[in-house]
Amino acid sequence: MSTIHDVARHAGVSASTVSNVLNGRAGQMRPETLERVRAAIAELKYGPSTVARQLKTGHSSFIGLLIPSIANPMFGYIACEIERHALQHGYRVLICNAYRDRDKEAAFFQDLLAHGVRSAIVVSSLEDERHLELAAERGMTVVSYDRRAVPGDRPGVDHVTVDSVLAARMATRHLIEHGHRHLAFVTVSGVTMSRKDKIQGFWQAVDEAGLRATSRVVDAGPVHQYGDSAIGEIGASCARQLSGEPDRPTGIVALNDLMALGVMAGLHESGLRVPQDVSVIGMDGLFLSAMSNPGLSTIEFPVTAMAAALVDRVIGGATPGDQPAETVFTDVRLIERESVAAPRGARRKSAASPRGAAAKSNTK
Amino acid sequence: MSTIHDVARHAGVSASTVSNVLNGRAGQMRPETLERVRAAIAELKYGPSTVARQLKTGHSSFIGLLIPSIANPMFGYIACEIERHALQHGYRVLICNAYRDRDKEAAFFQDLLAHGVRSAIVVSSLEDERHLELAAERGMTVVSYDRRAVPGDRPGVDHVTVDSVLAARMATRHLIEHGHRHLAFVTVSGVTMSRKDKIQGFWQAVDEAGLRATSRVVDAGPVHQYGDSAIGEIGASCARQLSGEPDRPTGIVALNDLMALGVMAGLHESGLRVPQDVSVIGMDGLFLSAMSNPGLSTIEFPVTAMAAALVDRVIGGATPGDQPAETVFTDVRLIERESVAAPRGARRKSAASPRGAAAKSNTK
Repeated sequence: MSTIHDVARHAGVSASTVSNVLNGRAGQMRPETLERVRAAIAELKYGPSTVARQLKTGHSSFIGLLIPSIANPMFGYIACEIERHALQHGYRVLICNAYRDRDKEAAFFQDLLAHGVRSAIVVSSLEDERHLELAAERGMTVVSYDRRAVPGDRPGVDHVTVDSVLAARMATRHLIEHGHRHLAFVTVSGVTMSRKDKIQGFWQAVDEAGLRATSRVVDAGPVHQYGDSAIGEIGASCARQLSGEPDRPTGIVALNDLMALGVMAGLHESGLRVPQDVSVIGMDGLFLSAMSNPGLSTIEFPVTAMAAALVDRVIGGATPGDQPAETVFTDVRLIERESVAAPRGARRKSAASPRGAAAKSNTK
Repeated sequence: MSTIHDVARHAGVSASTVSNVLNGRAGQMRPETLERVRAAIAELKYGPSTVARQLKTGHSSFIGLLIPSIANPMFGYIACEIERHALQHGYRVLICNAYRDRDKEAAFFQDLLAHGVRSAIVVSSLEDERHLELAAERGMTVVSYDRRAVPGDRPGVDHVTVDSVLAARMATRHLIEHGHRHLAFVTVSGVTMSRKDKIQGFWQAVDEAGLRATSRVVDAGPVHQYGDSAIGEIGASCARQLSGEPDRPTGIVALNDLMALGVMAGLHESGLRVPQDVSVIGMDGLFLSAMSNPGLSTIEFPVTAMAAALVDRVIGGATPGDQPAETVFTDVRLIERESVAAPRGARRKSAASPRGAAAKSNTK
């Protein structure tokens, strides 16, 4: 097997020149030199044998990343931030769309293990994570995003998550502070831990304000093609239906920003204005929510910091001990735009509300 | 090294039961059986040695996919469609965000080759693709999306693309048919082949209508963080600037849907209404454009068919012969929503315009 030095000798250049060509740093190089190096590489069929090296060490420099679907721009954003941080540590990221399907997740773990990949980040929050534990037992370091550790979890799978209860409580409180008393939390069918937590946060805020009798959780239906247009379309369809009801809510908390954008589209189609007729708030802080009309108020998650924590944990190796480790980010913040206003005929409940501030950080 | 049969013997089950556990098909299994198999796998540290197999055959079942950035929802959509089709053929997709940076692209090729990956799809359209040719010389099958073959290209890199000239011409004609005479094509700095083609299509339609004196291409500035919020924000900032000009265009063709959404946001911020004051049309057919307010009219690309063509070509191996192969998709179609209307005081130019049809397919 030829080495980089064979190529350098063959081309009459230094090994570092060959390395520059291989790594795309040939911008300053004379065309003739580049041509000679390329010819030598081709002739000797040179390629550094990472596969051989990997067999020796048993490790590769890949991190597996399992997400519901990158067609959902929020997951695309998270994946980019994870990749950016991983590259800084010399790791490449291998992405798989798993559509919140446990069989797809398990098959991906199988492929990762078979290719010598020993680190995986799972952006999912299926309640049942036995397949993750199985991968951990087989030597994989697994860090899960968007799911808390719960009693009964085995060690081997660490968790990084945002405080979803807090985020939903903040979103709901924001509507209540504007005087809304008829509230709805719009979600999709199917239970994940973060969805349960958001619903819990919604009810906490509702109960604090004594509004349970006039509030409800609306199940907008199942997502068949996860993360694609589906969740927006489901939000739109749900909003069209709510628009026709006599006791429709005046304030809607959506499961996430993409669903909120769909809800706003459905309201507009039904002839209702946001925020004059119905107020809408999302959660995520997706960049698209700043470009909507009206701009979507939302609870922003600290995506960059969470991505860094996921990468640091997974390349640091599994946490020793009996208890899975957990990092919960609580620094979510309210971004006020134009999609929330007082309902018609109502007065603002609190004079000390955060209106006017561009953003309000959580101080918990 | 232990085999699947060792695990089966150790657990007292059949090899196919072990296979079911490994591939996530344990849903119907008794918990005790699952537990025994998991214990045997852990004890024997079993993992099928794909790495060893790969060394023997020299091939892996991965396709590398190089895209500008999956934080841009259009690229996320394309990547999902590519992955879906690849999985049907037994291939996994390894995604890399390359931010239209030639050095990043070259480094990714280097890593792919080092890991034994011999197939790559490049969603980019940098004019200079010598680094792709270098990878092809080293044994990689490379298929490039969004770039045509040009004289002087070496063999080894095949192309699948949409007819960008046609798409931009259709978008521009749609504005002209509504009576617009002051037109602008809004793009970002930096030359890619598809951007050049779109500008060419814009000018073709403008010249056909004799509107060159009142039309222009607007360079909205460079994208530093490709594919993220940047292109939308650049569109918004450009629209804010155009809004203040005395001879502002009444009809805007945007480089793509994400940029068009940004342009609409910038116009709204400046107090201009779409389509009453300014008409806007995009290109891509991104699902988000259906959710904007007003809904964005656009030229839809046949993403699913193009993704299938990319995968089929790359797993089929390099095209023999001296000429790179090329597939150009011309079945783009106009999706009419609410963002285009006649300018104030103008009359529709053509009575035979496609208004009223939900979508008009290209019949070229």
